[in-house]
Amino acid sequence: MIELHTANTPNGQKPAILLEELNLPYELNMVDLSTGGQATPEFLKISPNGKIPAIIDRDTGIVVFESGVILSYIAEKTGQFQPTTLRGRYEVQEWLMIQMAAIGPIMGQLYHFTKVAPEPVPYAINRFATETRRLFGVLNRQLSGHDYICGDYSIADMAYYPWMCRAATLEIDLAEYSNVVGWLERVGDRPAVQRALGIVAAGQK
Amino acid sequence: MIELHTANTPNGQKPAILLEELNLPYELNMVDLSTGGQATPEFLKISPNGKIPAIIDRDTGIVVFESGVILSYIAEKTGQFQPTTLRGRYEVQEWLMIQMAAIGPIMGQLYHFTKVAPEPVPYAINRFATETRRLFGVLNRQLSGHDYICGDYSIADMAYYPWMCRAATLEIDLAEYSNVVGWLERVGDRPAVQRALGIVAAGQK
Repeated sequence: MIELHTANTPNGQKPAILLEELNLPYELNMVDLSTGGQATPEFLKISPNGKIPAIIDRDTGIVVFESGVILSYIAEKTGQFQPTTLRGRYEVQEWLMIQMAAIGPIMGQLYHFTKVAPEPVPYAINRFATETRRLFGVLNRQLSGHDYICGDYSIADMAYYPWMCRAATLEIDLAEYSNVVGWLERVGDRPAVQRALGIVAAGQK
Repeated sequence: MIELHTANTPNGQKPAILLEELNLPYELNMVDLSTGGQATPEFLKISPNGKIPAIIDRDTGIVVFESGVILSYIAEKTGQFQPTTLRGRYEVQEWLMIQMAAIGPIMGQLYHFTKVAPEPVPYAINRFATETRRLFGVLNRQLSGHDYICGDYSIADMAYYPWMCRAATLEIDLAEYSNVVGWLERVGDRPAVQRALGIVAAGQK
């Protein structure tokens, strides 16, 4: 049994998508970010960087934090949604890392500077919008000629989807990225993805 | 034999540190970032996001990009510098991910806004300096009571060192982070680390 500690954010949605795809039983624990639930001494014991999501695998006692690592841990544990070859496994890890180290941080800053910052900072908005568009272009090329990021549907797709589906909110025009548009539809149509987003938004299963 | 494509940047130093620690033979290929060497069609075939470093493992033909994934690939290949238990392996992956997804992107933005941006943006400088200090605090707590980030010296330390050793350049006062100071000395004193930084700076072995 997996204990999931999460909130309704792009990173917080990722492990719920994988758990729903797997039909694994899991316990949902919502962390209230509005009251600093991610920074309490209790939660820092689970996730020392004070970020959601985190899981506790009650079968092994292992605690895992960082959404990309949680996806990898559960994929390894179940032997699903990642390739079995060395080459294939690392291809998924590489694309997962671009999501974690670039798409997430850059789109996160774009969100902050367009929606949260108390003063307009045109230089920063332009910087992060330009880099977001470049990254959408990278993914669009990768999706050329196949349906999912690394061939078969995998944890890489589950890592990108919750971020990429927010393009419109961030005023990223998808017209130039037709492969991304098709991929967003394919992933978004999956019943498990829809269930996961609904569960995390409602805060209950 | 590993073919390393890199440049003299924090991320570019990481695989050289691991290869020098392992005393593995490798071929050094410097990518000239000043002339856009990372964006040529040739290089994009190796690293589709147009970023250094990347490796080609001539033993397997596998290409690996993203510095954190390169460290994991070589550690798995050689069975060194990461724990052998499931719990230990994932602990290293978690801390590696905080470096890749937070320390690198945030310190990278702090560098940009303090050293590169053509206009001063005090709001952005304050934002990224504050988050950098918070992250130094997280690492300082993690280093409390042991010498390296995940107990024994591992690829996690090799991922953080090239970034954290630039604290002074970014005007991060280390006085509050005494565990980080001791760790920086321990890692920086390692002959392999010194060799790697020298090789990547000189652009030749």
